[in-house]
Amino acid sequence: MSDRNAPVPLAALVDALRRLPGVGARSAQRMAYHLLQHDPQGARMLGQSLTNAVEKLRHCAKCNTFTEVEICEVCLNPRRDATQLCVVETPADQNMIEASHSYQGLYFVLMGRLSPLEGVGPRDIRFDRLLERATDGVVNEVILATNFTTEGETTAHYLTELMRARGLRVTRLARGVPVGSELEYVDAGTIAWALMDRRAP
Amino acid sequence: MSDRNAPVPLAALVDALRRLPGVGARSAQRMAYHLLQHDPQGARMLGQSLTNAVEKLRHCAKCNTFTEVEICEVCLNPRRDATQLCVVETPADQNMIEASHSYQGLYFVLMGRLSPLEGVGPRDIRFDRLLERATDGVVNEVILATNFTTEGETTAHYLTELMRARGLRVTRLARGVPVGSELEYVDAGTIAWALMDRRAP
Repeated sequence: MSDRNAPVPLAALVDALRRLPGVGARSAQRMAYHLLQHDPQGARMLGQSLTNAVEKLRHCAKCNTFTEVEICEVCLNPRRDATQLCVVETPADQNMIEASHSYQGLYFVLMGRLSPLEGVGPRDIRFDRLLERATDGVVNEVILATNFTTEGETTAHYLTELMRARGLRVTRLARGVPVGSELEYVDAGTIAWALMDRRAP
Repeated sequence: MSDRNAPVPLAALVDALRRLPGVGARSAQRMAYHLLQHDPQGARMLGQSLTNAVEKLRHCAKCNTFTEVEICEVCLNPRRDATQLCVVETPADQNMIEASHSYQGLYFVLMGRLSPLEGVGPRDIRFDRLLERATDGVVNEVILATNFTTEGETTAHYLTELMRARGLRVTRLARGVPVGSELEYVDAGTIAWALMDRRAP
């Protein structure tokens, strides 16, 4: 299937597209053909926005999210509660929490999670920056909001130890039955957590 | 999930990635985070190769495939049989036929196929260029090698009428049981074709 006789710019494009996560050889080829044949304007836009994003974006000095400036808008907002620090894996997770309109504190974006299976260890995640941030003397609660996957739980466990050793108060998002769901369709592990963490109504 | 507060270069990148076929909002966001966080070099490469490919590639004046020059290598090869013209949907299909080492003729790459459901009609595919190419006085057989999907078959049917009206000899790749497969696992439609087109061993 690979195109040994493809013109160099086409072969280079297919190779570069394969660096996108979840894109294999066939998808990359299909994407290249599609862009060149049906959406050259989209290809130009994507090319420019990639170069532009890599050049202009950096990490917020406080929360580590992507930003064009030194410190992002959320961290600069004086109305946010600086005593609470919510730790998330990605900016997408932060957006979900913001969308719940139930958190007024600040964030730290890990930009990843521990994954021993994928060879992602503590050194690959900037825990040093998180520790520095969490021990600023103002933060008095670190809320762990990593995903409830194996990797997210591993990360939360590791961070709990790390934070507690520094005398920080650590909490984790509650596990339980999702709002609007029927017990019949909820997995047994979730039911077990919901029972264990049951509370007065 | 959408990031209303994302810095402009990040939002622009996510939007541009969504133009890739098969990439939705979540995948685009994941791709953007991955490139920015873990592979900025890959992002730069992809950006440059997109711009480069759109600038340098054009269509072969004879077979319509992507090429950096006026006429591609295959079309210029004097050892190819100019009396046979094989019509394929994409360069990937052409590569598969080349890999079979059983065809010495020339090609015409449609760069698409008819798809009434997706609103792709005869005007969107360059049938005019194919007709011009097929009626050069040298070609005496047009081999239709579009896919054996609904769209590919529709395209083949349409081209058969078009070519026959010009007095051209048209053939279609044989349908039948794939080499190496067990009948038990072959679909009934294929078995039906294999029976209909049965031949002396």
